Amino acid sequence: MKKIVGIAGSLRQKSYNKWLLQAAQKLSPPELEVQIHSIEGIPLYNADVEAQGMPAVVQQLKDSIAQSDGLLLVTPEYNNSIPGVFKNAIDWCSRPDKDIGRVFGKKPVALIGATPGRGGTRLSQNAWLAVFR
Amino acid sequence: MKKIVGIAGSLRQKSYNKWLLQAAQKLSPPELEVQIHSIEGIPLYNADVEAQGMPAVVQQLKDSIAQSDGLLLVTPEYNNSIPGVFKNAIDWCSRPDKDIGRVFGKKPVALIGATPGRGGTRLSQNAWLAVFR
Repeated sequence: MKKIVGIAGSLRQKSYNKWLLQAAQKLSPPELEVQIHSIEGIPLYNADVEAQGMPAVVQQLKDSIAQSDGLLLVTPEYNNSIPGVFKNAIDWCSRPDKDIGRVFGKKPVALIGATPGRGGTRLSQNAWLAVFR
Repeated sequence: MKKIVGIAGSLRQKSYNKWLLQAAQKLSPPELEVQIHSIEGIPLYNADVEAQGMPAVVQQLKDSIAQSDGLLLVTPEYNNSIPGVFKNAIDWCSRPDKDIGRVFGKKPVALIGATPGRGGTRLSQNAWLAVFR
C-alpha cells in the first residue's frame, strides 16, 4: 500500500481545491492511500520564530511528508502564480535546509488544481516546478 | 517629487532585505521619496476572512500603493522562488479583482533583493515577473 500526502493550498472553507483533493482521495485505487493534510494553523514564515523552535504543526506536516511515498499538491492560482499562503506552508517544510533531504528527497510530487477560471491553474502549477526541481 | 512605496518581503527583524530597502531610501535622489512599508500584521490570505471585510492593514497598504508613483519590491528568495510570506501580502493587495486597476494600474514596479547566496535572488525576481505582467 503506497501512502500519498495530499495538501490543498487554500484556507477557504468551501475551497474548490479542498473538494478536488477529497475527490482524488475517493477515486484513488485500492493500493494507494491519499492522506489529507491541511495548511491551517501554519503561521507566516519568520526566521526569528523558527530560531525559537519549529512550530509543532510544521513539524507534524514535515514528518508526515517524510513518511509518505509521494506528495500531491492541490493548488489554486493567485495572480498568475502560486498562492502565497500555500508557498508559505512549503517554505516552512523546507526549513532547516539540512532536513530537506529527509522530507522531500527523491519524493515524487504531483500537481493538480481547480479554478473557476479558464486557465486551470496551469500558471501556478508551472511556477511550482521551479520550487521542486 | 515622486513617491515610491518600498516593501521588503521578510518578517525577520535583521532582514538583509529590510536593510537593502533602507539603503535604497537613503541613496535615493532628492526628487524621489522612498516610503518604507511593512508586511507585518498582514494575515494569511483567506477568502472567508476577506468576505467579512478587508483587514485594515491591507486597506492601508493598498491605499498607499494607489497613491504612489511606483512600487519597489525588495525580495528574498525561498526555494528558487518568491517567499510565500511576501506573495501573500501582494495577493491580499490584489483583492478584490475590481480594485486592481486603482492600486496597481500602469504603475512601474522595480525588483531588487539581497541574499547571502550567490544567485542574488534572480530566481525570485524572475518569478515575480509573471505576477505583475
